[in-house]
Amino acid sequence: MKKKVSNGVKGVSELRQDLVTGDWVVIATGRAKRPGDFLKQKRAPFTQPKATCPFEKLLPKALAVYAADGQHREKDWWVQAVSNKYPAFNKGICAVVNNVGPYQWAEGAGFHEVVITREHDRPFARMTREEVSLVLRVYQERFCAMEADGCVKYISIFHNHGRLSGASIAHPHSQIIAIPVVPPDVVTSLRGATEYFKKEHACAHCVIIKYELQKRQRIVYENKNFIALAPYASRTAFEMRIFPKAHRAHFEQITSDERDGLADTLRATLCKLAKGLGNPDYNFFIHTAPTKDHDAFALYHWHIEILPKTAIWAGFEIGTGIEISTIAPETAAAFLQKVKV
Amino acid sequence: MKKKVSNGVKGVSELRQDLVTGDWVVIATGRAKRPGDFLKQKRAPFTQPKATCPFEKLLPKALAVYAADGQHREKDWWVQAVSNKYPAFNKGICAVVNNVGPYQWAEGAGFHEVVITREHDRPFARMTREEVSLVLRVYQERFCAMEADGCVKYISIFHNHGRLSGASIAHPHSQIIAIPVVPPDVVTSLRGATEYFKKEHACAHCVIIKYELQKRQRIVYENKNFIALAPYASRTAFEMRIFPKAHRAHFEQITSDERDGLADTLRATLCKLAKGLGNPDYNFFIHTAPTKDHDAFALYHWHIEILPKTAIWAGFEIGTGIEISTIAPETAAAFLQKVKV
Repeated sequence: MKKKVSNGVKGVSELRQDLVTGDWVVIATGRAKRPGDFLKQKRAPFTQPKATCPFEKLLPKALAVYAADGQHREKDWWVQAVSNKYPAFNKGICAVVNNVGPYQWAEGAGFHEVVITREHDRPFARMTREEVSLVLRVYQERFCAMEADGCVKYISIFHNHGRLSGASIAHPHSQIIAIPVVPPDVVTSLRGATEYFKKEHACAHCVIIKYELQKRQRIVYENKNFIALAPYASRTAFEMRIFPKAHRAHFEQITSDERDGLADTLRATLCKLAKGLGNPDYNFFIHTAPTKDHDAFALYHWHIEILPKTAIWAGFEIGTGIEISTIAPETAAAFLQKVKV
Repeated sequence: MKKKVSNGVKGVSELRQDLVTGDWVVIATGRAKRPGDFLKQKRAPFTQPKATCPFEKLLPKALAVYAADGQHREKDWWVQAVSNKYPAFNKGICAVVNNVGPYQWAEGAGFHEVVITREHDRPFARMTREEVSLVLRVYQERFCAMEADGCVKYISIFHNHGRLSGASIAHPHSQIIAIPVVPPDVVTSLRGATEYFKKEHACAHCVIIKYELQKRQRIVYENKNFIALAPYASRTAFEMRIFPKAHRAHFEQITSDERDGLADTLRATLCKLAKGLGNPDYNFFIHTAPTKDHDAFALYHWHIEILPKTAIWAGFEIGTGIEISTIAPETAAAFLQKVKV
């Protein structure tokens, strides 16, 4: 093992390993000068007429409704949760694995809901802290409602912003999907965290947070309870992760005070991305512990991952699982630190 | 375990497990009727002027050059291999893992080459079998040249077709990247194949091929040595995989006879996709055994995976690793079987 400090901005590409998953990424800063550089990316604005938008009104059978003041009130609703009209998961038989030839399958038993905010043209980056907090409260409430179901093993909360992110409806909305298996990427993250804990007797994410707070090279925003940073092994240019500073396994267990701190961090980070990069498309999702076996997953550290669509994953990324980022996370963080919000 | 035969075309979504990786995918046929259905997808044609195309001429320091008749000849070159102008991997120090805080990194030591065919507007789907075979020969030749390097642990060969696939240059070209680590997706595939072998004393891919040849429900094309099929656990609508029928671990060891059979299968499959779906963008890549430790990986079965860009991977797919396909592979295969080539 040769000790050498990486400055992250040299021309030679660097393979960096994710401390938790063990996956390698490539920070290929030499490729940033390639035609089609992310900062000059042309973005067709993703707009849809308000008049025909299906999310403009309070939908029938809403599962949660809040007015902007945080009261349950329908007439001036500001956020609603409803079942997805075209669910990827729905009521079904769970916990039965069927055989067909050498293969196995199960019914897609679960839930698929949509969380819709009132304003057609106002994404997260332009919401107030209180508004973001209200959305997070609906996430939390619906998570807990789905968690009660015996079939559900994992709940994924995610948000797609812009056409390149896969959003089919421009009106701001998030999705919550509850499924009867623990998904592969979460298995990898849980396994990595468990192996690290066995070896180092510490939570890998806590180690990362402590180191990054000390170095202050990749931090983009922080407040009392939360930290937003560009991960050392970023998979895309300007990838961001938001962690609770204290060790917590379960997103759904945040207190209302923590929720406000999270809202502040999420809003500030998305705002910096929007202002600094000219409103890029992005996905964000929450990685949290599975809904069953809470004791086994107490060592996990929940967090939010934000992946701007600054590049398309092509044959190499899809074929190997190694992603190539053209901007070092240190460079991305230094740039975003300066963006005022 | 309840036995039940899946017909793959019902409205309820189905979780299917990949026999090798263990990953789950969702076949959500109920979502196919969602707005933006893949068959109606608008595709902006990806054209770039021939006059300014960097791939129109024989480039300096070409590493392999063939004329259409398969002879090494520069003046009427038909295919060339060159070093990538903006390499993700390049000459560097390999086999040294450096520490920085809790993290690890290594230099991106390796090779990054481009394989370019002569004609600006003629993609694989419109090449002859002989032409495709010549491209495969260059793949094989360059693979073997890179394999000789002591640093190289894995070689990824891939092709991006169309803008949505991540191609930045429209002129048909493939890429070969040689890297100093075995990439995570290949590790997963190797581990799955090894575990299956230990449990079932058989190659998982051989079991799949035997079953699919018997059922003939998901086969799209076959000849003496190769088979193209829609995998049971397809990750995207119209995903295709091409396997040698006989158990082979190493793509680079194909004979010239096998190469012609592979060219025939690849050409026919890409032609069916182009004709049947209106020239969709796609990525294809080769999964083959690592370049070192041949004995350890003899149980692997190399293959080509073709992933048409029929949908965008959004927050759920990126956050979970579970992909949602809106077309059952049986439906995709039945459709493509009828497309004449």
